[in-house]
Amino acid sequence: MEVRKVLLEEHEMPRQWYNILADIKMNPPVGPDGKPITPDMLAPVFPMNLIEQEVSSERWITIPEEVQGVYKIWRPSPLVRALSLEKALGTPAKIFFKNESVSPPGSHKPNTSVPQAYYNKVFGIKRMITETGAGQWGSALAFACSQFGLECKVFMVRISFDQKPYRKAMMEAWGGKCVPSPSPETKAGRDILEKYPNTPGSLGIAISEAIEAAVSDSSGSSRYSLGSVLNHVMLHQTVIGLEAKKQFEKIGLYPDVIIGCVGGGSNFAGLAFPFILDKMNGKKIDIYPVEPAACPTLTKAPFVYDYGDTAGYTPLLAMHSLGHAFMPPPFHAGGLRYHGMAPTVSQLAVEGLIQPRSVNQLDAYKAGVLVARTEGIIPAPETTHALACVVEEALKAKEEGKEKVIVFNWSGHGLLDLGAYEKYFSGELKNYALSDDDITSSQKVFESYPKPGILKSR
Amino acid sequence: MEVRKVLLEEHEMPRQWYNILADIKMNPPVGPDGKPITPDMLAPVFPMNLIEQEVSSERWITIPEEVQGVYKIWRPSPLVRALSLEKALGTPAKIFFKNESVSPPGSHKPNTSVPQAYYNKVFGIKRMITETGAGQWGSALAFACSQFGLECKVFMVRISFDQKPYRKAMMEAWGGKCVPSPSPETKAGRDILEKYPNTPGSLGIAISEAIEAAVSDSSGSSRYSLGSVLNHVMLHQTVIGLEAKKQFEKIGLYPDVIIGCVGGGSNFAGLAFPFILDKMNGKKIDIYPVEPAACPTLTKAPFVYDYGDTAGYTPLLAMHSLGHAFMPPPFHAGGLRYHGMAPTVSQLAVEGLIQPRSVNQLDAYKAGVLVARTEGIIPAPETTHALACVVEEALKAKEEGKEKVIVFNWSGHGLLDLGAYEKYFSGELKNYALSDDDITSSQKVFESYPKPGILKSR
Repeated sequence: MEVRKVLLEEHEMPRQWYNILADIKMNPPVGPDGKPITPDMLAPVFPMNLIEQEVSSERWITIPEEVQGVYKIWRPSPLVRALSLEKALGTPAKIFFKNESVSPPGSHKPNTSVPQAYYNKVFGIKRMITETGAGQWGSALAFACSQFGLECKVFMVRISFDQKPYRKAMMEAWGGKCVPSPSPETKAGRDILEKYPNTPGSLGIAISEAIEAAVSDSSGSSRYSLGSVLNHVMLHQTVIGLEAKKQFEKIGLYPDVIIGCVGGGSNFAGLAFPFILDKMNGKKIDIYPVEPAACPTLTKAPFVYDYGDTAGYTPLLAMHSLGHAFMPPPFHAGGLRYHGMAPTVSQLAVEGLIQPRSVNQLDAYKAGVLVARTEGIIPAPETTHALACVVEEALKAKEEGKEKVIVFNWSGHGLLDLGAYEKYFSGELKNYALSDDDITSSQKVFESYPKPGILKSR
Repeated sequence: MEVRKVLLEEHEMPRQWYNILADIKMNPPVGPDGKPITPDMLAPVFPMNLIEQEVSSERWITIPEEVQGVYKIWRPSPLVRALSLEKALGTPAKIFFKNESVSPPGSHKPNTSVPQAYYNKVFGIKRMITETGAGQWGSALAFACSQFGLECKVFMVRISFDQKPYRKAMMEAWGGKCVPSPSPETKAGRDILEKYPNTPGSLGIAISEAIEAAVSDSSGSSRYSLGSVLNHVMLHQTVIGLEAKKQFEKIGLYPDVIIGCVGGGSNFAGLAFPFILDKMNGKKIDIYPVEPAACPTLTKAPFVYDYGDTAGYTPLLAMHSLGHAFMPPPFHAGGLRYHGMAPTVSQLAVEGLIQPRSVNQLDAYKAGVLVARTEGIIPAPETTHALACVVEEALKAKEEGKEKVIVFNWSGHGLLDLGAYEKYFSGELKNYALSDDDITSSQKVFESYPKPGILKSR
């Protein structure tokens, strides 16, 4: 009988993360004056040991033993052969996925929340503060903080807070405190509440509140934490792809196609980055980051310097961006509703090392339901975007009669997103067609900003 | 670094289930006249191949390859060392658990829904019909049916249907159809709706509807399915304990204490039964089934002949029972709210081979939160009952200074029960003290029923 799951024992888990900054050229983060940001300017926001990781160009960075100890709660994650999906599609392609839904919070997010909590703990921080939209990231940070005995505070966008009470309960189960944003606890929150007492909130406001709460803690023992976009987040996620490489070695295969959904970029980066060096060295791999057609950052937005948050608290980052004030339409994949893209992922797109694609919401759910009924696991709305691309590639392989090896990242399960499935089945979900004007309307701000260089790493 | 997860490769998965009927004496199911039920009397309800399993006394029954193929979606499940819990309790005990929450529906239930769907398929059945209370079993059957291309219909107790819309969406994601019970689709449902149009429903009514819908399908291609209590259900669940035995062999340990929560008995049986024969042969093992104090079937109810359902459609089963009309108070562990207990588990209790215990709701949640904050996984409300006992045993080992090996069954995760955690944190949950009268009030019916013999297997 054919094997479904390629396992690794705990002692086979990677001992180091892969840092792609060693292998690609990057435009540095800058201030509005175009001057590079120095590490000490970030010190009130992040602990210095994480800032050092953010700017490091060492290729391999050791995973601390304490982090490995917590990773072992769910890692190494299985590399799964999607035998039933292959059969349903009648494709000669071999389809594999890294199942990152097996973590306690149900997604790949704890791959970085755990080391972030560890480094904060080591640096003497007592309390981590973050924001969350749909709730995946807030849950992952609450879980990580519970493992290292840190307090955790999460500002959750009010509309999600009201619609998804389970996420709040989840954070609370791990000892985290979750409040709706805007809140009366910060100046940013109070200002908004005064003007718009009934606002549903936004990720931009929540980020502002979280950063303000962290930097204004006069004890100095609070820090902010971000779940995607930044270099150190991508670094931590590479444990996914490094495991996958070992697992493919075990079965004597190597992927022809790599697929991951992208919002901020971290689950895609986690799987793809460890394979990028092989591609730079001549290996033929098609690498597809897949974004929602309703938030087309890589496929339709320019490569510019822009802020990572709506309020403009962060440095300017060189990335593909729809403009930091871009408001994506209300599609159901909260983790992909981001105006920008990780600078590392953006740089790879600029260099043509990855080929961005986009899918619309209904195609994504259609693929998600097909996969739930074959492989059994109910995918997160984010993951369904990768699945739509996987189905397309598998059918293409069928047409071409090619026995390709396709691997994708199953970024999370959809058990706390079943409300969205309910809407899909009742016909309430729709696609969102963006006009050219919708796409460009938030991009005027770039005109006055510094411009990133178009760098070539090889 | 110490290993957390003891894994088995797929080729090490057990090829046979263990049938405890080969090793214990049992009172047969009987009709109201006291005469044993014959297999053909059950034929309108279950397919004959499952009825044969129900009455078989073969010790080992082969797991069909098609069932193994689906098991491999999540099996073998890891045997996890609860290192962080041990540390938090400061106990010298080594605590392990079988993590059955890793299945797509999130519990041990698919261990039996998958073979049940397979045997129905082989027998030519097109549609399986069942009832569900909290939704775990209905989800597991919908998942299994999607794997074998069967239709699935689930009657879900109306109050749960309304309170837990995610469960319905989950069944739908796997192609199952879930309707609130009572429904206008059956005579049983219509009769109740006419009398009590606003009834919240009950498991008893839902069972009646599911059986009626199955046996009244004039095409003859529908059958009923039950997720606990029956012998063949316990049989299928033994894959848990058989894997655990292999995993303990790998690390050179053997459990001193085995713990599982009990409602109908199936997750407990799955872990414990494969160890019972060793105990019969002189091995010293303490085996604790743990039930809610508010539904004290094994700890406070007599061993009698009683019906498995409220309406009295099933044969009379020899079991511990609070009376088939017993209505447990509304505590939040839907899977443990059952008036009876599997006849096999009941027989073991009668023989003193297992030592039943009970815990109240608040102690269960307290243990659940401690474990979520140490081991990371959020337990199902049912599992928290086992956890309360685990904590007690681990602290006892600490007092006694004994390095005991404790293993328990993590029957499911609580991601779709976070509403109950929310209530626990807000102080809304309470314990339910049952009076003697509460416990005995539904037991008068037994007086007129046949009486089971007190059998001794060894």
